[in-house]
Amino acid sequence: MNCHLPTDISFSFAGFSKRGGLTDHHSDGFGIGFFEGRGLRLFLDDKPCADSPVAQLVRHYDIKSRNVIAHIRKATQGRTTLENTHPFQRELWGGYWLFAHNGNLSAEFQPQTTYYQAVGCTDSERAFCYLLDQLRSRFSRKPGNDELFDALAELCAQVREYGMFNMILSDGNVMFAHASTLLHYIVRQPPFGHAHLVDEDLEIDFSTVTTPDDRVAVITTLPLTDNEIWQQLACNELVMFENGQIVRRHCPEPPVYLTREQGLELARRAGVSY
Amino acid sequence: MNCHLPTDISFSFAGFSKRGGLTDHHSDGFGIGFFEGRGLRLFLDDKPCADSPVAQLVRHYDIKSRNVIAHIRKATQGRTTLENTHPFQRELWGGYWLFAHNGNLSAEFQPQTTYYQAVGCTDSERAFCYLLDQLRSRFSRKPGNDELFDALAELCAQVREYGMFNMILSDGNVMFAHASTLLHYIVRQPPFGHAHLVDEDLEIDFSTVTTPDDRVAVITTLPLTDNEIWQQLACNELVMFENGQIVRRHCPEPPVYLTREQGLELARRAGVSY
Repeated sequence: MNCHLPTDISFSFAGFSKRGGLTDHHSDGFGIGFFEGRGLRLFLDDKPCADSPVAQLVRHYDIKSRNVIAHIRKATQGRTTLENTHPFQRELWGGYWLFAHNGNLSAEFQPQTTYYQAVGCTDSERAFCYLLDQLRSRFSRKPGNDELFDALAELCAQVREYGMFNMILSDGNVMFAHASTLLHYIVRQPPFGHAHLVDEDLEIDFSTVTTPDDRVAVITTLPLTDNEIWQQLACNELVMFENGQIVRRHCPEPPVYLTREQGLELARRAGVSY
Repeated sequence: MNCHLPTDISFSFAGFSKRGGLTDHHSDGFGIGFFEGRGLRLFLDDKPCADSPVAQLVRHYDIKSRNVIAHIRKATQGRTTLENTHPFQRELWGGYWLFAHNGNLSAEFQPQTTYYQAVGCTDSERAFCYLLDQLRSRFSRKPGNDELFDALAELCAQVREYGMFNMILSDGNVMFAHASTLLHYIVRQPPFGHAHLVDEDLEIDFSTVTTPDDRVAVITTLPLTDNEIWQQLACNELVMFENGQIVRRHCPEPPVYLTREQGLELARRAGVSY
């Protein structure tokens, strides 16, 4: 979630967290990180999300944030342990960065890094360390967002050579999303309407809980609601969200969109579960 | 807390957390980090500990760990925000490190670092970044614990030139404690007895909840219990705990021990609250 104003994620999290063992078969742990100012509050649990006490706290705790990344894990590589639980966190240029990955990179992806090393044994954390290491090597100080975007477009093109690389990355200000196969998003802004979750019979009237200045982007593998129009990222597309809207996009021409069935089939073949 | 076997911290936390706004005046946020295997579960809250929903979760959630660092903050430098909340976390040599500080370093302590930069604006986080940066510069791979201890003894001597530096640092295996003024510890091992908290009328019979293989060291500013004998670190002493006991110590001769009153008076003068 990337927002213009600090926003409560409880509605989306109610549906999302059901995918951790109830309506979906993702069940090898979950994590959610909230940026608050320059700080980061990260909750990780190697228990299934649907019955985790940490998820219970998140569901009922009123945390407002402009950038949130959540992940429910079905292990493809690496055991179900805390150190392999997404999202992953590092500090770069005196700020925290958060990263989550849905996909599977080949065992040949073993980049050498100078500043960051994986703590666990997942392809995902190696990819995160590689991205940050390359950014840190190229820029001794934090560059502007456009320079960051251009560098990440190049780096994502390198990483996806090794396999499926659906990922979300944020520095607490902007949020980058890269799709190899399936990634959807919605931008909610005035006039706000009703939304109804796919995974739970829960409906919300956003007009009663928002202000005219609110604008909220939610990015997920598959849409969370069944009565709103979600957009899809093309294969190999990278986008940058800022203040709840897309401000940069990079997509190979012509754009290719997978159907849900094609995306799920590719995931099955790669050993990734949605 | 540093232990031989994964241990539940709930008894000590029950007393400790009362110091966050009830029996003590520490009230600018709290944090607690649990190492679990190679992973780290860090809970941070910029609310007073005594009524924080996160502290509530920790009190009732059965997390067992061999190394735990908790901190209740009374701000001396830096606003009461999440990014200034201890303990601080970084990755070094492919492992997580956790750090908490009780003290106050002068504004002249502004070390240049290559690998780590503070996200918030506290003297404490700058000190942590300095320690890790120096370790990373001296050792490209993780050295043995004795080499780590020798390097840290030298680095702590540098940092304490700038002011009061009571700190705890852990890599999830060993735990380092350095005292400028007040730091106490207890090693609980067989035969286990009764303990009664200072801050809450709560008693525990450790013999009913331990095994003969348990050994647990608890290190705190001031003793948490009133019917056990706590040991004190000397001024400028550095110790290393492993498997619940001290395995290395470095102390200037002759050792100087402050009384509780002297320590509290120095803290008051430095603007530090206990």
